[in-house]
Amino acid sequence: MAYNDDKINMVHGAGGEVMQDMISDIILGNISKTSVNGGIGLEALDDSATIPIDDEHVVVTTIDSHTVDPIFFPGGDIGRISAAGTLNDVSVMGVKPVSLNNAMVISEGFEQSDLEKIIKSMNATCEEVGAAIITGDTKVIDSDKLDNIIITTAGIGIGRKDEVVTDSGLEVGDKVIITGSVGDHGMAIMSKREGFGYDTELKSDVAPVWSMVEAAKKVGTITAMKDPTRGGIANALNEMANKASVGMRLDEEKIPIKPEVNAVSEMLGIDPFEVANEGKIVMGVKADTAEDVLQAIQKTKYGKDAQIIGEVTEGKHVIMETVIGGERLVEPPIADPVPRVC
Amino acid sequence: MAYNDDKINMVHGAGGEVMQDMISDIILGNISKTSVNGGIGLEALDDSATIPIDDEHVVVTTIDSHTVDPIFFPGGDIGRISAAGTLNDVSVMGVKPVSLNNAMVISEGFEQSDLEKIIKSMNATCEEVGAAIITGDTKVIDSDKLDNIIITTAGIGIGRKDEVVTDSGLEVGDKVIITGSVGDHGMAIMSKREGFGYDTELKSDVAPVWSMVEAAKKVGTITAMKDPTRGGIANALNEMANKASVGMRLDEEKIPIKPEVNAVSEMLGIDPFEVANEGKIVMGVKADTAEDVLQAIQKTKYGKDAQIIGEVTEGKHVIMETVIGGERLVEPPIADPVPRVC
Repeated sequence: MAYNDDKINMVHGAGGEVMQDMISDIILGNISKTSVNGGIGLEALDDSATIPIDDEHVVVTTIDSHTVDPIFFPGGDIGRISAAGTLNDVSVMGVKPVSLNNAMVISEGFEQSDLEKIIKSMNATCEEVGAAIITGDTKVIDSDKLDNIIITTAGIGIGRKDEVVTDSGLEVGDKVIITGSVGDHGMAIMSKREGFGYDTELKSDVAPVWSMVEAAKKVGTITAMKDPTRGGIANALNEMANKASVGMRLDEEKIPIKPEVNAVSEMLGIDPFEVANEGKIVMGVKADTAEDVLQAIQKTKYGKDAQIIGEVTEGKHVIMETVIGGERLVEPPIADPVPRVC
Repeated sequence: MAYNDDKINMVHGAGGEVMQDMISDIILGNISKTSVNGGIGLEALDDSATIPIDDEHVVVTTIDSHTVDPIFFPGGDIGRISAAGTLNDVSVMGVKPVSLNNAMVISEGFEQSDLEKIIKSMNATCEEVGAAIITGDTKVIDSDKLDNIIITTAGIGIGRKDEVVTDSGLEVGDKVIITGSVGDHGMAIMSKREGFGYDTELKSDVAPVWSMVEAAKKVGTITAMKDPTRGGIANALNEMANKASVGMRLDEEKIPIKPEVNAVSEMLGIDPFEVANEGKIVMGVKADTAEDVLQAIQKTKYGKDAQIIGEVTEGKHVIMETVIGGERLVEPPIADPVPRVC
């Protein structure tokens, strides 16, 4: 197994089990203080951390480096993904994101006009949720040391403690909702790289999810949420089930997948459940509010294709009833099959 | 001038005037919302931003990407600078830093043992101020696309609104304090790169400055603070003077410079005022509390060599009375003469 090697390889960064091992051993094992004021900290490995401020308020915060390749892709660019990715990690904690910090490391020779496009895209994405960009840092590196650009964004949300939703709160009987079609981002990146490019209709789903969270909260009870980025829904669903010591039963027929995603998926032999989404949420919802939540989400800009895809069960496996009437185990991937996806 | 070119070059990232121009034009010019709840936002270009939470509390936050080369250098490493750099940007807002978010982009083939050293160093630095590391992100990139490692940290401090000190509050008559010797970090990096390496006693000053801020606040009134990183004290002093529309008169004799920094500085023809410090603060202090503040700082671990180096005047220039009895204008550098210094 790659982990026994003494050098870091691509699998260590691919959002799967090997990466979890490295994070536990080298990172968590060497950090002495991982939370503030009893909030959700690093070892929770949730989408964001929380810092309780007083009896009522909480700050939600997260960070993500974005190294997506290519930086301009069908449906988005590194600016949009840098904003949406981080705003989404805050959003799926149930709290409204208010701001981004934006740190860019740019290769010498990078086109100023491309940088401007990226900033505009980032800004447009922030405007959708009303978030501000409040701090920044810019570094330039020799072009033989860095290819292109890396954008790291940290996000902050501010809300009430009782709004916070973790990724570990699933309970038996909850319905599982996915807010739209699966695998769009990973497959769009892969297909662009493979040169299918703009010939297909395949586009990344990269988008801010806050409007869907807001709509869902108003009408229902969300027990757990996660945005299924690296490692796809296979990773997210297993992580949620595992953290809550429950299982899931999914109905394959209900899981929305675009025909063009299926096509590329078959051509490349890549499971669309294992690749990143950048504008979706997987959520557990109390069964009696699930229909209301579904309808509320479907009325939002990015939630038209939302579906109830299954429910939470006893046990510890994520099991899918297949279209042809069988059953298959949905397992967490060792790694996202598409590198540099976000 | 480099700015007229359409490609980004090293000077754009070097913390000087060319960089300020690019930030204004391409970044600030394209961002529509730059602050939250009336707090200090992006356009202030202060060390950190603030988000007022309620009548009393404020969140202070900032972000920095660290690309220092080499990653292990005399006196520190990229882990220590990633923690200290960001904790310091929060500290010089007058508010105690409580947490870091840590995002690492690692080149494939990077030694796991080096990563562990870096994490341990980062952790030890956080322990000095009692800050937690609460969120993280790890990405791995092909070694032909990135050399080594880039670490981006965002920091959060939480305090009372009345604690916040900006970098624009200088008033005529204030004393100017520097908390220790000037140019150590930049010259240590440069001398290691030039191969003087460990032959000299020259070490980076990289350290968390919070203990000095805390000590100073207790006994005096700080009107403005800044940590003089890229561009050195020449950049920091001019920025502070410029923002407050005042001038300064400095006494060269009082500005602490280590003999080994002077030696390397002369050998390389680099002005120690223009290179980065990573464990220092430049502050303006009300004159009647300046001696008390100085003594309090001198009692802290990193403040032994602190000095009152001058005072705030009418006008708009930073003027230094030289050791030989003349006067010289201290001007903001076009760029930090040492690239990839932090």
